[in-house]
Amino acid sequence: MSQNTRIEHDFLGERELDDSAYYGVQTLRALDNFHITGIPISSTPLFIKGLAYVKKAAALANKELEVIEPKVADAICKACDSIIVGELIDQFKVDVLQGGAGTSTNMNANEVIANKALEILGEPKGNYDVVHPNNHVNFSQSTNDAYPTAFRISLFMLINELLDSMNQLEKSFSKKGEEFKNVLKMGRTQLQDAVPMSLGQEFNAFSDTIKEDIKRVEEARDLITEINLGATAIGTRVNAPIGYPELATKHLAEITNIPVTLSPNLVEATSDTGAYVQISGVFKRVAVKISKICNDLRLLSSGPRAGLNEINLPRMQPGSSIMPGKVNPVIPEVMNQIAFQVIGTDVTISLAAEGGQLQLNVMEPVIAYNLFNNIQILKNGFNTLREKCIDGITANEEICKNMVLNSIGIVTQLNPIIGYENSASIAKEALQTGGSIYDIVLERKLMTKEKLDEVLSVENLMNPKFINK
Amino acid sequence: MSQNTRIEHDFLGERELDDSAYYGVQTLRALDNFHITGIPISSTPLFIKGLAYVKKAAALANKELEVIEPKVADAICKACDSIIVGELIDQFKVDVLQGGAGTSTNMNANEVIANKALEILGEPKGNYDVVHPNNHVNFSQSTNDAYPTAFRISLFMLINELLDSMNQLEKSFSKKGEEFKNVLKMGRTQLQDAVPMSLGQEFNAFSDTIKEDIKRVEEARDLITEINLGATAIGTRVNAPIGYPELATKHLAEITNIPVTLSPNLVEATSDTGAYVQISGVFKRVAVKISKICNDLRLLSSGPRAGLNEINLPRMQPGSSIMPGKVNPVIPEVMNQIAFQVIGTDVTISLAAEGGQLQLNVMEPVIAYNLFNNIQILKNGFNTLREKCIDGITANEEICKNMVLNSIGIVTQLNPIIGYENSASIAKEALQTGGSIYDIVLERKLMTKEKLDEVLSVENLMNPKFINK
Amino acid sequence: MSQNTRIEHDFLGERELDDSAYYGVQTLRALDNFHITGIPISSTPLFIKGLAYVKKAAALANKELEVIEPKVADAICKACDSIIVGELIDQFKVDVLQGGAGTSTNMNANEVIANKALEILGEPKGNYDVVHPNNHVNFSQSTNDAYPTAFRISLFMLINELLDSMNQLEKSFSKKGEEFKNVLKMGRTQLQDAVPMSLGQEFNAFSDTIKEDIKRVEEARDLITEINLGATAIGTRVNAPIGYPELATKHLAEITNIPVTLSPNLVEATSDTGAYVQISGVFKRVAVKISKICNDLRLLSSGPRAGLNEINLPRMQPGSSIMPGKVNPVIPEVMNQIAFQVIGTDVTISLAAEGGQLQLNVMEPVIAYNLFNNIQILKNGFNTLREKCIDGITANEEICKNMVLNSIGIVTQLNPIIGYENSASIAKEALQTGGSIYDIVLERKLMTKEKLDEVLSVENLMNPKFINK
Amino acid sequence: MSQNTRIEHDFLGERELDDSAYYGVQTLRALDNFHITGIPISSTPLFIKGLAYVKKAAALANKELEVIEPKVADAICKACDSIIVGELIDQFKVDVLQGGAGTSTNMNANEVIANKALEILGEPKGNYDVVHPNNHVNFSQSTNDAYPTAFRISLFMLINELLDSMNQLEKSFSKKGEEFKNVLKMGRTQLQDAVPMSLGQEFNAFSDTIKEDIKRVEEARDLITEINLGATAIGTRVNAPIGYPELATKHLAEITNIPVTLSPNLVEATSDTGAYVQISGVFKRVAVKISKICNDLRLLSSGPRAGLNEINLPRMQPGSSIMPGKVNPVIPEVMNQIAFQVIGTDVTISLAAEGGQLQLNVMEPVIAYNLFNNIQILKNGFNTLREKCIDGITANEEICKNMVLNSIGIVTQLNPIIGYENSASIAKEALQTGGSIYDIVLERKLMTKEKLDEVLSVENLMNPKFINK
Repeated sequence: MSQNTRIEHDFLGERELDDSAYYGVQTLRALDNFHITGIPISSTPLFIKGLAYVKKAAALANKELEVIEPKVADAICKACDSIIVGELIDQFKVDVLQGGAGTSTNMNANEVIANKALEILGEPKGNYDVVHPNNHVNFSQSTNDAYPTAFRISLFMLINELLDSMNQLEKSFSKKGEEFKNVLKMGRTQLQDAVPMSLGQEFNAFSDTIKEDIKRVEEARDLITEINLGATAIGTRVNAPIGYPELATKHLAEITNIPVTLSPNLVEATSDTGAYVQISGVFKRVAVKISKICNDLRLLSSGPRAGLNEINLPRMQPGSSIMPGKVNPVIPEVMNQIAFQVIGTDVTISLAAEGGQLQLNVMEPVIAYNLFNNIQILKNGFNTLREKCIDGITANEEICKNMVLNSIGIVTQLNPIIGYENSASIAKEALQTGGSIYDIVLERKLMTKEKLDEVLSVENLMNPKFINK
Repeated sequence: MSQNTRIEHDFLGERELDDSAYYGVQTLRALDNFHITGIPISSTPLFIKGLAYVKKAAALANKELEVIEPKVADAICKACDSIIVGELIDQFKVDVLQGGAGTSTNMNANEVIANKALEILGEPKGNYDVVHPNNHVNFSQSTNDAYPTAFRISLFMLINELLDSMNQLEKSFSKKGEEFKNVLKMGRTQLQDAVPMSLGQEFNAFSDTIKEDIKRVEEARDLITEINLGATAIGTRVNAPIGYPELATKHLAEITNIPVTLSPNLVEATSDTGAYVQISGVFKRVAVKISKICNDLRLLSSGPRAGLNEINLPRMQPGSSIMPGKVNPVIPEVMNQIAFQVIGTDVTISLAAEGGQLQLNVMEPVIAYNLFNNIQILKNGFNTLREKCIDGITANEEICKNMVLNSIGIVTQLNPIIGYENSASIAKEALQTGGSIYDIVLERKLMTKEKLDEVLSVENLMNPKFINK
Repeated sequence: MSQNTRIEHDFLGERELDDSAYYGVQTLRALDNFHITGIPISSTPLFIKGLAYVKKAAALANKELEVIEPKVADAICKACDSIIVGELIDQFKVDVLQGGAGTSTNMNANEVIANKALEILGEPKGNYDVVHPNNHVNFSQSTNDAYPTAFRISLFMLINELLDSMNQLEKSFSKKGEEFKNVLKMGRTQLQDAVPMSLGQEFNAFSDTIKEDIKRVEEARDLITEINLGATAIGTRVNAPIGYPELATKHLAEITNIPVTLSPNLVEATSDTGAYVQISGVFKRVAVKISKICNDLRLLSSGPRAGLNEINLPRMQPGSSIMPGKVNPVIPEVMNQIAFQVIGTDVTISLAAEGGQLQLNVMEPVIAYNLFNNIQILKNGFNTLREKCIDGITANEEICKNMVLNSIGIVTQLNPIIGYENSASIAKEALQTGGSIYDIVLERKLMTKEKLDEVLSVENLMNPKFINK
Repeated sequence: MSQNTRIEHDFLGERELDDSAYYGVQTLRALDNFHITGIPISSTPLFIKGLAYVKKAAALANKELEVIEPKVADAICKACDSIIVGELIDQFKVDVLQGGAGTSTNMNANEVIANKALEILGEPKGNYDVVHPNNHVNFSQSTNDAYPTAFRISLFMLINELLDSMNQLEKSFSKKGEEFKNVLKMGRTQLQDAVPMSLGQEFNAFSDTIKEDIKRVEEARDLITEINLGATAIGTRVNAPIGYPELATKHLAEITNIPVTLSPNLVEATSDTGAYVQISGVFKRVAVKISKICNDLRLLSSGPRAGLNEINLPRMQPGSSIMPGKVNPVIPEVMNQIAFQVIGTDVTISLAAEGGQLQLNVMEPVIAYNLFNNIQILKNGFNTLREKCIDGITANEEICKNMVLNSIGIVTQLNPIIGYENSASIAKEALQTGGSIYDIVLERKLMTKEKLDEVLSVENLMNPKFINK
């Protein structure tokens, strides 16, 4: 054994580690066992931060309950603090996809914190008699409460970042709604010309629909503040001192400033993944709706000559390696794909949740991987969509207005005056002859010119008053 | 034309109908067009009721706003009342899967109500000059507001039925939780022996987890009380008299006793299907969790000789055409399958929601079909599960207890006293030799017999106190 | 007990049946246990036929192997024949969603066949000493081989019906491809104008893409001809006479005219649901592709004034209860929804397949329900799409051509002559000024008028020759 | 501008690049536009290789058809060769999730190859008059044929790697099947004791089921050898010289040694994503089946004291941070999660395929991302499962055998001798009294001891002969 290595052991035997490593033997085994995605858990830095918060809260509670010595507890807290500010992140190496319900992740944290604490105490790495990954750092805990609690803490922080990007996007749509409020355009249902509206109404609808999504995300976020810290192995609190769950939860709320509360039934909480399924379902909802919006944006900007061409998206990059001058709606397109990823992996999360058995759901790592990833790509997508698309949209006002004036759909507004059947007959004639509604109505002498002009004025088309016989 | 038929026309031409039919030409076209599932919309009677409620609320508002004559409005209301009490349900024949965003369903209702109103007024069917499906029954409405409002009214009523069945199931589990509170058993994580618990805790966890689901379903239900009645075609209120949307909503709330409110943005509300995606996501959550519970029940009752055999499910039917005496957990099995149906069709609903374009989502019928079906099978499944399975479960107490006493997992409770590494070493020896934890601990003189007996008493195994050095 | 009832028993006890029932006590228990969908297994008549074929093949093999008496075997065969021709279908009442891996369905068949055989022999129903549902009708079988074999037989027949409808639809598209071969139109990528093509090419692509789907469906169909008849309970052939599996398979092939073969590993075959997952995956592929086609049809027919309006779909029904004259693409819309149902329930089938455990997959009923349903709605959808939409599509030739001639996209064809960068610059000018490509090229003197006319002739736009400097 | 930068332009304007970059302005725009996953396309090196193969095949064809100069074509080929051997991979930086249907990926390749070719020719980077990304490297191509062709080439190579791992896993199971062929154990259906079998049969079923999956993967792989090279923008071959598609395809087949063929309908081929949906559906099938196997392995190794404990999985790492000695089935657990990822993202792929419109599917990048990722994690999972789990599995023979001998299920084997009803009655007594089948049969004098011993011998239980009266 060289000077630069150390030997550690667990109940399966001994392993040699490079002594620069803060992690220990159990992390090493996990690194050997899980070569799956190649993506380490440190790819979500807030998750590592979440782990450190949980370990610190536990140490504070253990110290207060006098089940670990103050000196050791303090060193653990300091070690956690250094991780919370972003140090040692490269030590969190285990693969995001792993068996063992997160035990490898939890032990990675326990080992890194133990060795950092030893360093703080002036001890060599691996001197676990002084600070032990299990007996001290993990004291009063199990993977089965520490891991999901850290997961929830980090989800909470990540969702807040997502909400920021949603709020900004909502405002961006709302601004366009105001900008386009006087742009008269044809409304369409089932891709068929329907009745007029303003382009501003269309963008305000995008804004308001995201506003509702924001509320749903906030509600789902709040569900994950219920934690099971102190449940230990299966929720019976085995090996946790009396009062520990409540105390650790209190400390965690204080140091994170997140309103976590202790679940009233820790056995239930330890195996339940309902909150993840719920939040993934809400992300799916968000994805479905933003995808619909992007479909609309792509449709409204189709053309320029052989499409609807009502709006112009900012021109971000040449659109074709062969077709000169072609520019594509690449930003909505990538948002659509993000949405598909979120919708599909919601199924993954459901499968993982359904696959839990008895007192624990062992499949949480794949849930965490996808929730983390989905928040990340949704957030990036929303920011990209806002900055590189929505904010720069312009309207082709004349095109929009002319499609209304040439339309057959405006006949709808004559219904209350001339009745559905007369209107239908006029529409039919217009379709067959190519004539205009205006002319046919006059020709048939169904209304006076004055009344017709009133009903079909731009003002009344955009904000229809109810006018009847 | 025989005495028993009548001719109706729409703008596509004339069609002959059997004069016994209350529906008219547009329903007839829909019947011709959509031979898809063979399942008529009347397969969900509460949906037909919902349609009638909406048409009645509209008639009341139209009457009050003086846009249709009192006599006609009153006849329409009476016609709706007869449908509300269950009459004429056989007249709602269009296929649940249909194009046209529900127009066929809406016209089916308009036509049946018009002809019923005509009958009430002593007029022959088809005499639409007096009561017209479009000009009177559908007045101030479009399919695009009437259909989703009726859909939501019926969803609300159906979800309440579902909640009843969930509440009863929750109580059933809770009762078993109480009954089994003193049955000591092994808790398991990752299918491996973990630490002891009581069977009562396991059933209470089932109860509490359903309690949470009930809350989520209630929240999702409340989201669908926001309606877009009066939005008409695309949310611009075109052809609706001033004040109509608010008034119709008020009447609808009164006659249904459902706290519906008008959406603040009718354009947004008319194309948005977020609430359906949300509620389907919640049903998926419910499905995922009940499936997990059923998996557990099947596992715990596995055997009788070569399985866990901790509990007995009621014996409902011979389980095999070849294996005599075999009885299978058929009730949890059917519940699992119901869950799979709900989880899969959540994807259908997402696809349909994502496929909406511009001012309307044309795919609502497939959303309605699956939501209605999923509520129905979940409700039936929960009732079946409760009556034919949970209520009759018994425990094999001796088997449960003996698995704990023979287990290695009880060593966990010695951790705080003898440390994780000693415990691990004992566990290893027990595994290799087949010996008992109790004997090995004494042999190694790590604890006194008194202390060991205290820690490993049935009482302390089931409700572990924290005991350390 | 009245004259019109009889008593039957199984090992769970006695039950009274209406004596008109051909089914017996085990079916009765299943009817009591499974009130889930309300849809009986007889909703797929070919499945009942498949069950009868299997029972007949088994009886023939049992007779030949002399394990049941000729008289009994012959009566069973005759009973099966009557079911094969469609009799007694109302006796197959158990719910399509059921626990027990199909045991209830298998026993329903065993009991109906036994009682019908008794009738043929002049015996009263229930006289099972003479013909017993288990000891005779089910002899040498288990649900676990008889049920999946019948399932596969019926799938094969149903898929052939589906293939018929696909072949007809393919021809319908192909005919339109020929009809529209000279209609010049703009090709579009990413909803942006790309380069010209003919409408015929577009419809031929629809035709050819369905042709490929037909091949994939045929391949998947052929996978299900491998059966496990004679596997009995778990594939070990327990209680099947030597030679039975091979002989029963041979008889089954003969009487059904379906090229079934015996699986080489009956243990594997008994728990494996891979073929169902495969075929569902292929149906999902078919659904995805037809949905894309229907999206295209709806887009190409959008308008009439504020859309692309390249083609006209047959006008099937008034499209709106409020907008007179509006006609919607209701047939493609219902096909989209069918596709969503198939795509979503593919997830259901995957979940059910994944949920199988050890020697059997107990979740087959939900797989069967969805595969049967999906074939049915796909078939109905394809026939509807063909008859009520594709066959009647017409082209708006002038509109199509003008969009090409006014387009910027035709500049692509100048690339090999004037280079990508010149082309891009021209495209940019056209976009900014609204000018035509033709004029700008001439203005810039980049090509002679003759060459430009050659390149931009309708003939060369539709079938581009490679023309360079 | 410093010495170390260069200016490039496209039709949207000028951009400054670090002159060390081989990529150019369009790649730079893509890097700016798509900050989504943070994962570059180079994360799948075989995809970059595939792009280089396609560009080389195109250059060879263009040279042969004399549409680009030999000197330029040769330089392009050499540049491609350097990428094929793995150089410059760090230059392929665009995000895996991108809008534009892969244009950014294609242009990234075009630009890197152009600049590498310039370097080979002794020219400075950016001197595109000599070798131009579009006019030379991309000549006769569009993203819409080059990108999917490269995608397919790389899929083919990746799938072959996957097949290697599947073949090895299959052999590993088969070896265990041989090793365990004499281990008598209880077969289980629906988690209930069924009839005996050997553990070898169980593992051989795992082996054979994977063998079938291998065939399905091979078939799906072969579907993707049909390519659309030469289709250019939308399949009309615009701007491709006569003979180019066939020639480029021939060259591609030669240099890759992959049997690619040209699609007979290039318009259809350019928008069709059926082959990806198909292959993803097959991966889903593979995932579903391996997940079922892993569920079984976890169940069979459950315990050690309170579970089935029939087999032992290799002990890979300590299983708990709190429960000493606990070892979990971490390898099957991670395989389950891989399966869930594959099953869920199959939905993503379906959505992306369904979202394609008109002449192109713009959503291919998200399809590629998930197919690449799923192959990678499946392959890693299979290798991990084989090496770290299956190869080291041992059987607990005594436990297995005793569960059979104590079982009630062996009564099934008496059916042909004593009949189903007698057997059922014996089973019932055994269940109620806890007695053994053997004793009860003798007691009831239903068989001689000799015959009973013959039927219930270990030999006959494992390989049942048909024994009747």
